[in-house]
Amino acid sequence: MTTNILALCGGVGGAKLALGLSRLLKPAELLTVVNTGDDFRHLGLHISPDLDTVMYTLAGVADPERGWGLAGETWNFMRALSRLGGSDWFNLGDQDLATHIYRTQGLQQGLGLAAVTQSLCASLGIAQRLVPMSDDPVQTIVCTDQGDLPFQDYFVRLACRPRVRALRYAGADTARPHPDFAALLGNDAPHAVILCPSNPFLSIDPILSLPGVRAGLQSTRAPVIAVSPIVGGKALKGPAAKIMAELGLPATNLAIADYYRDLLNSLVIDDIDAHEAPAIEKLGIEVRVVNTVMRSLQDRVELARRCLEGTS
Amino acid sequence: MTTNILALCGGVGGAKLALGLSRLLKPAELLTVVNTGDDFRHLGLHISPDLDTVMYTLAGVADPERGWGLAGETWNFMRALSRLGGSDWFNLGDQDLATHIYRTQGLQQGLGLAAVTQSLCASLGIAQRLVPMSDDPVQTIVCTDQGDLPFQDYFVRLACRPRVRALRYAGADTARPHPDFAALLGNDAPHAVILCPSNPFLSIDPILSLPGVRAGLQSTRAPVIAVSPIVGGKALKGPAAKIMAELGLPATNLAIADYYRDLLNSLVIDDIDAHEAPAIEKLGIEVRVVNTVMRSLQDRVELARRCLEGTS
Repeated sequence: MTTNILALCGGVGGAKLALGLSRLLKPAELLTVVNTGDDFRHLGLHISPDLDTVMYTLAGVADPERGWGLAGETWNFMRALSRLGGSDWFNLGDQDLATHIYRTQGLQQGLGLAAVTQSLCASLGIAQRLVPMSDDPVQTIVCTDQGDLPFQDYFVRLACRPRVRALRYAGADTARPHPDFAALLGNDAPHAVILCPSNPFLSIDPILSLPGVRAGLQSTRAPVIAVSPIVGGKALKGPAAKIMAELGLPATNLAIADYYRDLLNSLVIDDIDAHEAPAIEKLGIEVRVVNTVMRSLQDRVELARRCLEGTS
Repeated sequence: MTTNILALCGGVGGAKLALGLSRLLKPAELLTVVNTGDDFRHLGLHISPDLDTVMYTLAGVADPERGWGLAGETWNFMRALSRLGGSDWFNLGDQDLATHIYRTQGLQQGLGLAAVTQSLCASLGIAQRLVPMSDDPVQTIVCTDQGDLPFQDYFVRLACRPRVRALRYAGADTARPHPDFAALLGNDAPHAVILCPSNPFLSIDPILSLPGVRAGLQSTRAPVIAVSPIVGGKALKGPAAKIMAELGLPATNLAIADYYRDLLNSLVIDDIDAHEAPAIEKLGIEVRVVNTVMRSLQDRVELARRCLEGTS
């Protein structure tokens, strides 16, 4: 096993850092484990939003503006489905649909999600190893003032409007972590574990909730380094700050540090939040103050470089 | 029951005549029963090629050149699937895919094929009644010198190259004809039954092979009128003439008349084949000599008018 770096990630922010890491490490040196709590069945298809975002980002075919889906996408399927009175609240591009149909068919034929992902990555020319957190289904449920909602209902259909009271990850208690992931939580400890700047509740917690993962990260000899998704009191993308407020947490890096306190050795925060460093360090967590806003490829590589500092 | 005319049809030729009939009859006066022996599962989707061709033709959205699928279609899904290494021998347009996904989802939810078809027709603005021959699966199997082939393997993947030895319709012995269709074979006889100019072996026989259908058409008091798919010794479209040759039948209207002899009161043949009329009439079958080549909408309506002559 040559894996030096284990990265846990969700969608957009995580994908950007995974891309940065992929430019600094040989393919075999990095294992990226992706959240599948957002996966759902829609229109008879198995959709894995975070896996797709990371795959498309690593393959260089992600849409740079929209934050999801493919560049140069067309929407003729969606318009036709809408005309037929089909369900059209979740947008699926014509090219993106090929991924969902390919994956769904593979799963129907008895392949696991990891095997289908490996095959998709090969076709997309991705050399890095990318695995779903588990082949077993885990479903993020958002408990809100409008009742318990499957993730995509909360996130897309209701545009994150309901107030979040709690989250749960249905199936996580029995889902088996991907074996390559599980191996890195045991004696084959990597040189570092990186929690990407993804939503703690929606992207990282589903992974941590798998059997043995949290305990493995608590006891691993590898340093655990998180990149905070909070910059200047806001989330760069998505509802992290809104959910923190609804859960009674301030939208600060200190709150992120405290939230991951049982796992964390280092927290990477943005320059703009340098003033938070002393309070975080009081928790016994090292702070790295850097630019965490990844606008360019150079930003991604530079943030990855800062995450890897001292780990080789 | 106000149905005056029962039309049995397959794909392109049948769809054209159904369109012509739809311009002469009120929606309630016509029931079009469509072959589903070509239906198959592909990429996890339930595809009903003949139903789609008839629906798209009646809705005025069929591609006029290609003979299948939608006008103004795009192929971005197919190209993306091809890049992923997915199965790409059967072309599915981006908009057409909406029909397949809508149908597959409806079937997965427990609706019958007829109910899903009704819903699709309503969305497409089709007033005419269009039903699959059965909600139960029937699979046309082409027995060839390369073995027994599911229809689409023979028709699309192998481009009708194998030599046909026989045909069978798996499931037809137990499939129940659509109830509205079955009713017209009993005491509620229509004013006429029209066998559209579709392939006898691939489109009409699967319908005739359902329990009670052939016997019902043999005994009905309604005249049974077929439009021959053979013009000048050739099929206008598809492999009808090739299959007739392989089955030891000449590609003539006389052979078509003889093939349907137990059912038929009248055969409609093309002007170019007028010389065949006396031999066909000797079988006790009335012959109508008309233009059966439907290039324009006017041709379709005129052929429909000639089929309906004497039936009101």
